[in-house]
Amino acid sequence: MQKRTMDDLGRINVDQYKAAKKLPLVVVLDNVRSLNNIGSIFRTSDAFRVECIYLCGITATPPHRDIHKTALGAEESVDWQYFETTALCLQHLKAKGYQIYAVEQVHGSQSLEQFTTQQPTAVIFGNEVEGVDETILPLCDGCIEIPQYGTKHSLNISIAAGIVVWELWRQLVPSHPLL
Amino acid sequence: MQKRTMDDLGRINVDQYKAAKKLPLVVVLDNVRSLNNIGSIFRTSDAFRVECIYLCGITATPPHRDIHKTALGAEESVDWQYFETTALCLQHLKAKGYQIYAVEQVHGSQSLEQFTTQQPTAVIFGNEVEGVDETILPLCDGCIEIPQYGTKHSLNISIAAGIVVWELWRQLVPSHPLL
Repeated sequence: MQKRTMDDLGRINVDQYKAAKKLPLVVVLDNVRSLNNIGSIFRTSDAFRVECIYLCGITATPPHRDIHKTALGAEESVDWQYFETTALCLQHLKAKGYQIYAVEQVHGSQSLEQFTTQQPTAVIFGNEVEGVDETILPLCDGCIEIPQYGTKHSLNISIAAGIVVWELWRQLVPSHPLL
Repeated sequence: MQKRTMDDLGRINVDQYKAAKKLPLVVVLDNVRSLNNIGSIFRTSDAFRVECIYLCGITATPPHRDIHKTALGAEESVDWQYFETTALCLQHLKAKGYQIYAVEQVHGSQSLEQFTTQQPTAVIFGNEVEGVDETILPLCDGCIEIPQYGTKHSLNISIAAGIVVWELWRQLVPSHPLL
């Protein structure tokens, strides 16, 4: 088995990316503190053609050296928008007809492997310590929880985002092909 | 929707973890350079009860302050073993009857969403720059590739591990329940 070269992989450039079809999936970052996590989520979102990343509250915005360190340039390809509060961001998403889910460990959540969607969806990831703000949860259509069986309270936010974006790519791509 | 407290979550402690059922899934790190990535993969592996992490070649081993920073203690719960070379590690895994897959972008790979397994499986993640060593690929039963549609060459290794471990948890857990 021979590794595929960069040519074989046929990656697109930023201009091609901007013009390309996107997944009807929006990632909302609710007061995320770590620039590394923000950058990492840009890199993951680039791979699966997430439509837009909404950066809310204290979440830092590009350009920033420490976002670039983990985004590796994906902050140039993936569209993003800043909102002063996550509540304002959700108003905007509701007006556009998105189904909105917080990724959070709450009573009454849906476990990720049982969650299904075929329509434009927004997923919210919260602060590294506090999670998604309590006041935001009632504004959502529901909560998605990643089942966990270990000793730790939670997954790292950039890993959680990787898992959720992958799972929603899997569900949305058959009816929204990217190629 | 009310957040679940640490009590509600019912996380197990390290002793309970050691005694608990594990997923028949082994993660092999082939010459992984970044201590942050190693620690992050411990944290993810803890969440899904990965059986063991095999640390090969230049991959650092716990205890290490920079592994702890992202593992947050999961290096205490998840079993690990060190091998001087990845080839020796694969010999060991083959003798134990594991199916072995490199996560790599190669000609003839299986795309992750089409990959299925029901038996004990090992997945190899390679160096951040070089990927899985070319000499290791012929020793594997196949390669798994995460489909990607963006501008970047690849995903971060800890994100790739998160996605692959999640996907294999989904496949293995019905026939190997953890609870």
